[in-house]
Amino acid sequence: MRALDDLYDRLSQRNSDALGYPAAKDFDCTPLLRFLQLPLNNVGDPFAEGTYQVETRAIEREVLAFFADLLRAPAGDWWGYVTNGGTEGNLYGLYLARELHPGGIVYFSEHTHYSVSKNLHFLGMRHIMIRAQENGEIDYDDLRETLKIHRDVPPIIFANIGTTMTEARDDVSRIVEIMNSLAIHQRYVHSDAALCGAYAPLLDPRPSFDFVDGADSVSISGHKFLGAPMPCGVVLARKHNVSRIARSVDYIGSLDTTISGSRNGFTPLVLWHRLQTLGIEGVRERARAALEVAAYAVEQLRAAGVPAWRNANALTVIFPRVPDELRDKWQLATQGAISHFIAMPGISKEHVDALVEDMRCSALR
Amino acid sequence: MRALDDLYDRLSQRNSDALGYPAAKDFDCTPLLRFLQLPLNNVGDPFAEGTYQVETRAIEREVLAFFADLLRAPAGDWWGYVTNGGTEGNLYGLYLARELHPGGIVYFSEHTHYSVSKNLHFLGMRHIMIRAQENGEIDYDDLRETLKIHRDVPPIIFANIGTTMTEARDDVSRIVEIMNSLAIHQRYVHSDAALCGAYAPLLDPRPSFDFVDGADSVSISGHKFLGAPMPCGVVLARKHNVSRIARSVDYIGSLDTTISGSRNGFTPLVLWHRLQTLGIEGVRERARAALEVAAYAVEQLRAAGVPAWRNANALTVIFPRVPDELRDKWQLATQGAISHFIAMPGISKEHVDALVEDMRCSALR
Repeated sequence: MRALDDLYDRLSQRNSDALGYPAAKDFDCTPLLRFLQLPLNNVGDPFAEGTYQVETRAIEREVLAFFADLLRAPAGDWWGYVTNGGTEGNLYGLYLARELHPGGIVYFSEHTHYSVSKNLHFLGMRHIMIRAQENGEIDYDDLRETLKIHRDVPPIIFANIGTTMTEARDDVSRIVEIMNSLAIHQRYVHSDAALCGAYAPLLDPRPSFDFVDGADSVSISGHKFLGAPMPCGVVLARKHNVSRIARSVDYIGSLDTTISGSRNGFTPLVLWHRLQTLGIEGVRERARAALEVAAYAVEQLRAAGVPAWRNANALTVIFPRVPDELRDKWQLATQGAISHFIAMPGISKEHVDALVEDMRCSALR
Repeated sequence: MRALDDLYDRLSQRNSDALGYPAAKDFDCTPLLRFLQLPLNNVGDPFAEGTYQVETRAIEREVLAFFADLLRAPAGDWWGYVTNGGTEGNLYGLYLARELHPGGIVYFSEHTHYSVSKNLHFLGMRHIMIRAQENGEIDYDDLRETLKIHRDVPPIIFANIGTTMTEARDDVSRIVEIMNSLAIHQRYVHSDAALCGAYAPLLDPRPSFDFVDGADSVSISGHKFLGAPMPCGVVLARKHNVSRIARSVDYIGSLDTTISGSRNGFTPLVLWHRLQTLGIEGVRERARAALEVAAYAVEQLRAAGVPAWRNANALTVIFPRVPDELRDKWQLATQGAISHFIAMPGISKEHVDALVEDMRCSALR
């Protein structure tokens, strides 16, 4: 079909020019394409058998086990599923927190992803926005002062492990210490690790955001750092919490544990195949290479007179807002006074050179 | 990879044996497979441009326009998007209803899909379950009496256009008449047409459930009657209602009007390709052929002594609960005292013969 050929050519071009959004480009689904002849559907809980059997739940469980290990989830006390993306994982974490602490207050920094306030409105949860530091990380002093005023209400911490604009990471251990120092024991911590979750555990120093650090649930996107042809992700939570919610759902007449009923059975295959092909060492090397491109971008942009910067061990490089034609050409996410480039796998130093050259020319005009 | 070969073989077999769930099997995505090399993402509103351009929004809009026409949506006053499945479409409809009528009461029959009570709990909406008739359709007398008691609160009707177990269709015109007769003008009607939405408009008599009949939003699954390798669907709503809840987001250069932020860009291609290949006449013929298989199944089962039945113009054939080994072999959805077969496209009279033969043998033992 001619229309499809034209579309494919245009999208291929636009994909090679996309430098500003967190989407890896170097995946290869070829060995999985035959599965698209089947009406795959992982309907319901990944750990329960179902009557419909055109499904990939066994594969899904392997993917979840990989992430449970990576995120140091408590052995025998974790549960999760492959989601349609980070938003669903965050919605799940907040939903679980609400069921455990009805009336709890959600705390999140002003640099939190735009979808979170929508999620909170959805769920009807009380929330307080906390100031952020210059780099995008939550302001721990503001958090402490605010928690202190509301010690009678269980806090639900929504931690950013990589903010949307600057990839800043809130320090979960430090947040837990603050709550401990205020003797706040009824609490919940959700880590939104959409971009970083798949590689942050392999960094040195290891950012503090996983189950051992104090998170009760973690959401990670699959189409970002690992790469996938469609949005997907993983959400993990403590199993004994999930069991309580499964019962409470039972009360209203249902036992299903996931937000979507029918669920994508192809994306677990994609994530499984990525992990099988890369292995843990492949993921580590992938992160090293991408961080090198990010460092190179900062260096080259600065050499060209652009005051670029990035957070420690971040793939996201921030610089002053670019003119619209550059934003559109390189699809650079732009918000207020800043734009950013993200050194996702599949983006090379040559891409950086081309971007820097364009920015140099643009500055000269 | 050997593991993938084994999985594929097993799933192919299980797919050819699946007779009890609403999943068409006769789709062919071959011309679309190359698009899976790209990190497609229709992030944000389908009708707004965004900064990220590896997306299929133009294709998505064509799919939506097809359904808007099919569902007689008001010209120039409709909006919608391609969802991850029926549950997301229903959640969207209920969310919209809640925003328009905070404090409204949701009415739905006891045969409503299990996900709906979860959705209502999610959104914290007041709700009243209404009795159903024997065939699964809502009990209009019970609905009238219940509405009468709560005339001070806007009703939000959740209508089933094909219940999960018996494919019963609530009559939206009749429900609207009841509300009119009670002078209830502040109201909202959502039609859950997951299975039937794609072909019911082509039936004679045409079931009453679309925008002209009085619906304010309609959700349809794409992977059911049309067929797709992963769950997907379409939700449509009146645009002037949606505009009241839209919000602009700088980061993606678009409007955040959908429940998911990042959105699947492949499923719009799948639906578009299905509709291009079939055409409206193809969809009609497809429905005729499937209904013929359903009628044949009732006839053959009855001839074999099984008291099978179906609702008028329904693809779902209901019979007494089958033994577990038959349920598992043919993947027959089973609930309480009944099981069902669904004559989805891709299922032939030969499949019916094999099922009937098995049921005959089972009855003899």
